[in-house]
Amino acid sequence: MAIFGCYLVQVGDPEVIKAGIVGGTGYSGVELLRILALHPETTVTTVTSRSDAGTRVSSMFPNLRKYLDLKFVQPDVAALASCDVVFFATPHGTAMQMAPALLDKGVKIIDLSADFRIKDAATFSNWYKMEHTCPDLLDKAVYGLPEINRDLIKSCSLLANPGCYPTAIQLGFMPLLKHGLVETGNLIADAKSGVSGAGKKAELGYLLCEVSESFKAYGINGHRHLPEIVQGLNAVSQKPVALTFMPHLVPMIRGIQASLYATLLAPEVDLQKIFEDFYQGHPFVDVLEAGMSPETRSVRGSNHCQIAVCRPQNGLTVVVLVVIDNLVKGAAGQAVQNMNLMFGFPETMGLDTIATIP
Amino acid sequence: MAIFGCYLVQVGDPEVIKAGIVGGTGYSGVELLRILALHPETTVTTVTSRSDAGTRVSSMFPNLRKYLDLKFVQPDVAALASCDVVFFATPHGTAMQMAPALLDKGVKIIDLSADFRIKDAATFSNWYKMEHTCPDLLDKAVYGLPEINRDLIKSCSLLANPGCYPTAIQLGFMPLLKHGLVETGNLIADAKSGVSGAGKKAELGYLLCEVSESFKAYGINGHRHLPEIVQGLNAVSQKPVALTFMPHLVPMIRGIQASLYATLLAPEVDLQKIFEDFYQGHPFVDVLEAGMSPETRSVRGSNHCQIAVCRPQNGLTVVVLVVIDNLVKGAAGQAVQNMNLMFGFPETMGLDTIATIP
Amino acid sequence: MAIFGCYLVQVGDPEVIKAGIVGGTGYSGVELLRILALHPETTVTTVTSRSDAGTRVSSMFPNLRKYLDLKFVQPDVAALASCDVVFFATPHGTAMQMAPALLDKGVKIIDLSADFRIKDAATFSNWYKMEHTCPDLLDKAVYGLPEINRDLIKSCSLLANPGCYPTAIQLGFMPLLKHGLVETGNLIADAKSGVSGAGKKAELGYLLCEVSESFKAYGINGHRHLPEIVQGLNAVSQKPVALTFMPHLVPMIRGIQASLYATLLAPEVDLQKIFEDFYQGHPFVDVLEAGMSPETRSVRGSNHCQIAVCRPQNGLTVVVLVVIDNLVKGAAGQAVQNMNLMFGFPETMGLDTIATIP
Amino acid sequence: MAIFGCYLVQVGDPEVIKAGIVGGTGYSGVELLRILALHPETTVTTVTSRSDAGTRVSSMFPNLRKYLDLKFVQPDVAALASCDVVFFATPHGTAMQMAPALLDKGVKIIDLSADFRIKDAATFSNWYKMEHTCPDLLDKAVYGLPEINRDLIKSCSLLANPGCYPTAIQLGFMPLLKHGLVETGNLIADAKSGVSGAGKKAELGYLLCEVSESFKAYGINGHRHLPEIVQGLNAVSQKPVALTFMPHLVPMIRGIQASLYATLLAPEVDLQKIFEDFYQGHPFVDVLEAGMSPETRSVRGSNHCQIAVCRPQNGLTVVVLVVIDNLVKGAAGQAVQNMNLMFGFPETMGLDTIATIP
Repeated sequence: MAIFGCYLVQVGDPEVIKAGIVGGTGYSGVELLRILALHPETTVTTVTSRSDAGTRVSSMFPNLRKYLDLKFVQPDVAALASCDVVFFATPHGTAMQMAPALLDKGVKIIDLSADFRIKDAATFSNWYKMEHTCPDLLDKAVYGLPEINRDLIKSCSLLANPGCYPTAIQLGFMPLLKHGLVETGNLIADAKSGVSGAGKKAELGYLLCEVSESFKAYGINGHRHLPEIVQGLNAVSQKPVALTFMPHLVPMIRGIQASLYATLLAPEVDLQKIFEDFYQGHPFVDVLEAGMSPETRSVRGSNHCQIAVCRPQNGLTVVVLVVIDNLVKGAAGQAVQNMNLMFGFPETMGLDTIATIP
Repeated sequence: MAIFGCYLVQVGDPEVIKAGIVGGTGYSGVELLRILALHPETTVTTVTSRSDAGTRVSSMFPNLRKYLDLKFVQPDVAALASCDVVFFATPHGTAMQMAPALLDKGVKIIDLSADFRIKDAATFSNWYKMEHTCPDLLDKAVYGLPEINRDLIKSCSLLANPGCYPTAIQLGFMPLLKHGLVETGNLIADAKSGVSGAGKKAELGYLLCEVSESFKAYGINGHRHLPEIVQGLNAVSQKPVALTFMPHLVPMIRGIQASLYATLLAPEVDLQKIFEDFYQGHPFVDVLEAGMSPETRSVRGSNHCQIAVCRPQNGLTVVVLVVIDNLVKGAAGQAVQNMNLMFGFPETMGLDTIATIP
Repeated sequence: MAIFGCYLVQVGDPEVIKAGIVGGTGYSGVELLRILALHPETTVTTVTSRSDAGTRVSSMFPNLRKYLDLKFVQPDVAALASCDVVFFATPHGTAMQMAPALLDKGVKIIDLSADFRIKDAATFSNWYKMEHTCPDLLDKAVYGLPEINRDLIKSCSLLANPGCYPTAIQLGFMPLLKHGLVETGNLIADAKSGVSGAGKKAELGYLLCEVSESFKAYGINGHRHLPEIVQGLNAVSQKPVALTFMPHLVPMIRGIQASLYATLLAPEVDLQKIFEDFYQGHPFVDVLEAGMSPETRSVRGSNHCQIAVCRPQNGLTVVVLVVIDNLVKGAAGQAVQNMNLMFGFPETMGLDTIATIP
Repeated sequence: MAIFGCYLVQVGDPEVIKAGIVGGTGYSGVELLRILALHPETTVTTVTSRSDAGTRVSSMFPNLRKYLDLKFVQPDVAALASCDVVFFATPHGTAMQMAPALLDKGVKIIDLSADFRIKDAATFSNWYKMEHTCPDLLDKAVYGLPEINRDLIKSCSLLANPGCYPTAIQLGFMPLLKHGLVETGNLIADAKSGVSGAGKKAELGYLLCEVSESFKAYGINGHRHLPEIVQGLNAVSQKPVALTFMPHLVPMIRGIQASLYATLLAPEVDLQKIFEDFYQGHPFVDVLEAGMSPETRSVRGSNHCQIAVCRPQNGLTVVVLVVIDNLVKGAAGQAVQNMNLMFGFPETMGLDTIATIP
């Protein structure tokens, strides 16, 4: 029985909200469907796909058979306007096209793409190689990391859901930066992601035969999540940070592990206590006991983040180890966590899923 | 929102039943814990482990952190006697030792091991290389395949939960045998299992380096599930069957796929309709549309069985393709399904989990 | 030290033959390059790729750095005409376009595609959905299974290299059919392949996230290798065969395992001896001792085929278990074995590679 | 045809040396067998195993069928004394027991374990939790990293073969430290290894079901390779180094990737040229072109090390990316490279293996 408790629900409840998903054929999309199909206060009414309109969702995703009886439809503001909330699980560039019209109609928006994450439109253009079509909305958008922005999230109507690497890396560095415990000039984030982080794209580079039984760094000339991470870290740090962010591809489907390195300014502090205190009361961040190392499978399919902090050989370098499921806390799960906050539901509703081990 | 509906629950409900698990450190054990931790009408009060007594369950299984606050205790009839139901997730030979005393105390037993599956004690001894210590209970035990024995299960107190291969293979062959549609003398079951089917044992043969990136048949001189399968098939068939059962090891964690072959006696029958009719009203068996092939990931972590039937090149050979998760429908999930039946809960309670894709 | 012996070689030997590869960017192509780069009597002079002409081969395949210093060039008869042998590692439909002109210029051809495997042009068209452009060459082409056609291969100039499934399945069934030991009306081949069998194609279905941690049958409505297998089996069998061929996808890169089932006509024969005698003197087919089950990793990266034969529970069903590496004995390795025969080199030259375990 | 050339060999050559392997059942052992079975100047005459004496080597490792016709024998100085060279592929603590007697008999020793790597006996005892039984030999032992110690290796009779992580990490850091280009006080080595790095041990932690589809840091309280790495780095650095070494477990069989981070003292240097010059003339270290990232599969099964160096966002942090196969350049291959040097064979003899892609 869940420790988090259960909720009184009635099928057909008039208070159940209607959700739409734009871009339901990708990995974040199907993960949203998996979570929302069992969410007690939400019903998915619209799932769009430009290329697969007319197809049963459960034909493409047989895991949803018996749980979701919908067909993909064309993305269309009119159809989506009847929703209470619309999730964008699309590549960047789509949400910014449809957001203004939907917001006008009173629909709340949760954008899982990068369109509203970067506050500075020029920085966005520089990294994402496109102009921003509604830069005026950037200020209105709330960055959806509940552990930092919970109150802002509750009252927002346009939510920028964080990227997967940014979620893991910010959660790991924040306690250190907030308390000014480390040098800010040489932060290192050695991050590793399962292949689903690349999305569902027919590219040679993500074939099983190309990535299985191998390991490599990638994006060594600059990864688009870098400006998002730096923006987030700067917001909590007294001094601007210089971050080396090196992503790696792990031959597995799901999971991000980040090993974060920083030079301690005050080695005598009780790092364990600082982390535990910092995440007190946050239902999805779990600080492990000293000496443990989090593994990605412990959070696979769940919205939890597990963190450990250590100081090898009692040296000046602090190491923070963070794991999340890139598609859950790093995407769809965090999006539903944000939806819960935006609609006044319990923060953990629909997210009480335990990772399967093994 | 779940199509199966939701349940009114109150934490601390006096009607919640108390469950014990003997052998909580193995893969069936942790899977039971994962499912029962979120089951609305059950609370796990006792988890035993001879070797790990005193250890926090969530230290061994960090996926259960925040969901289960128990320590392993020594297996002990006195401690277990306060439970309403005790699950045995042990190797064969343990349940038969403790079952009589627990039954005497009015505890219901769900045995995930082989101890009570084979009706003939001599056959059991022959395949499992040990004497049966309570052969008189064999008649009392109900074989827990709900799709065949639902009514018997509802009123039983000693349940023999089927093996993983037997579940998949029986579900696939039963419609054909029940209707006498195939020759019974040359049935072939080419079955493939993920490595978790071997259990959590420190043996060289199941190291990642030994089984990853490889595929092989095993147990070619006879697998212990053979007599269980044959017993089950004979029970529905007009004539005794001769079955060639060849298990294979797949380099993945979970899942069983069985390709079943038989020679049709009456090729003109509508096989698709026969299968759909046969499984009408069974919430966990899902007959796919003609032309589809079930894949194990569609049921990974869920209690569903997906089945397809086809007749390649319109020949005389019928092929049935079956997938289950060996640890769920093939073990812990089916055990909870049986528990639901035994205690009058809705059959699907606690089992509305959707497989994660990807 | 290799038991097969070693060869006297001098770099720059005027007797070294020149090899060209059409379609060098696929998995069979790179495997040919890996083998030929170390073949003592061959030098690769031309590797073509329509889409990647101009690219260094070792930029695409960094495993070849230091071993191959070539760029991809456009496929062109003039360029290839200076080769002694040209390998086609292309999709079907390409070799038949270029073969007549190359043969005219005295170039020997080894076609790894299906263009010259099926003797009947209508059957080819039916399964491969294209007209054959040089049906007159079909009679001239020799089917390159050395264990059956060694002498024909030695003197041929147009070689049809067998498919991967056909190699494994024919090698397994041939001893039984040649000796008329089994019923021919209900042969079953339950075959499993690693994902590289699908080739290097940017398709969603072969992404790591789609096929890893899952298992399924595929091609259930008919796989193109079926007519090739049946043609080969009929050639050795006294009676025409009826075969049910069910391929499956294994979440690994390389390897084919086939479990073959047939009904024995004469159960008293010594199957082990029949198989050992049949493959006596064939350097790449290895009959395992009774009771063993071959695993794909034992032949990974090597040209060996390992076979076991058994009769479960002493029943009437004989089971043959076969493993090969689909890219080696099932493609590039067998192609080099055939080249060795066609040019009078020792059959095993360049193929003395031992599988890596683990 | 191999660019490295080929060698004149005659089977039964009286100059062929005799090799013994102590501990032939582990992963380094079988990898030695795979390489030496095809080495033109070596014949393996003795393979020992305490627990498996009497068993055919090829029964345990079916990849060696047709290539090695030996049985395991008891480890015994008398039997090994007839060898020219003895490899120890044992856990630490074994080689030091047998080395003195074998050296006395004129046998050269290549120890793949840690017994002779650490020059300071107290440091060895501290990390490996045992007394060193022949500390006097520590000075005599040569640390077998040919890229540093080639000349010493040529004339030594007791060779300490480097660990897998130490090989990768030293090769990556050495050009920077040798030239004094980086701060030595905050070096970071974030290293990742396939599971075979743990050896062939029947432990729960390395079961496929425990490590597949997951990623984690391990050894966070100190890994035994740390003192070996620091000793090696200090030997080339003008100032003592402080290194944070964090190993991670990758769900794959083979391969080590290390991402190394250091703060540049002189950012204006041409790092690419420095690395290329440093490894000029070293046949097994390959510096990739700027902008490339090495992947482990490119060196899988081969003795090559691939390295890239970069400076993300032109910052002060230099990143070196290194890949090796932990069982080849990180163990058995490097051991054979050292044997070649010790016996005057060409350094690459028997090591011209190209990684299989895919």
